[in-house]
Amino acid sequence: MLLANDLLIKNQGAIHVIGYRSCIELLKSVGAGRIGITLDALPIILPVNYIYLDLGPDLDGCILFRTDPGTKLDAAFRHSVVAFEVDEIDYDKEEGWSVLVIGSAEVVDDPILEEKAMANGLHPWSGGMKTHMVAITPKIVSGRKITH
Amino acid sequence: MLLANDLLIKNQGAIHVIGYRSCIELLKSVGAGRIGITLDALPIILPVNYIYLDLGPDLDGCILFRTDPGTKLDAAFRHSVVAFEVDEIDYDKEEGWSVLVIGSAEVVDDPILEEKAMANGLHPWSGGMKTHMVAITPKIVSGRKITH
Repeated sequence: MLLANDLLIKNQGAIHVIGYRSCIELLKSVGAGRIGITLDALPIILPVNYIYLDLGPDLDGCILFRTDPGTKLDAAFRHSVVAFEVDEIDYDKEEGWSVLVIGSAEVVDDPILEEKAMANGLHPWSGGMKTHMVAITPKIVSGRKITH
Repeated sequence: MLLANDLLIKNQGAIHVIGYRSCIELLKSVGAGRIGITLDALPIILPVNYIYLDLGPDLDGCILFRTDPGTKLDAAFRHSVVAFEVDEIDYDKEEGWSVLVIGSAEVVDDPILEEKAMANGLHPWSGGMKTHMVAITPKIVSGRKITH
């Protein structure tokens, strides 16, 4: 598990780096994020509701979401490296934080993991079957916040 | 100007397509979004505060933000095709909308455009010089919303 903050932080003014543990806590604290993938060689960003699931003391957790056949599922079938971002923005204060995960997406074919995710509240916000579950296993995690 | 909704909408359940004009109005209504670019061949998503500027009745508008030397500026110098996303998520209702723009990023070297952007309220939220301005000219615009 690497921290990519050195890559991302170009400005140390009011921008503060968020440590790995806090990044994971923030990932657990929100339920919707954005996945960055490519579609026909074009970059796209799609919102998705998800859960972050701990897999035990000796394993890294993963981001899980449900989806229908389409762009996101195709990326998972290809084991694509994807970006996943969550943030919280305060427009009045012009402050906010963001956490960026880079990892490979994979289709979940483990019924026990699927059941665990559903028991932890993962369900699609929109209609449709959303019969597939996708896991993103974080390889690089970084976060930053702007405060005044 | 193309609409990519057909590419993105796989589920017509509670997901509704947002038309082009409404997408542009939503882009104008928020001041922070996320840019999807690549860094060392890895996909990343970075939040950025921005304005959407109309350039007159016969011209498409553009997304403008300020930045320091770094990943986002490098993308602009390369005239990279980037993704830009804005959204609003209601966790209680499990509803939300998102607008996705795909376009090329370019460094702004037109002082009149720079002045116009600043007059329209564009300023960096974080410290640092942020001496460069980047424009994303939308080529593909799409939006969708989930309502119950």
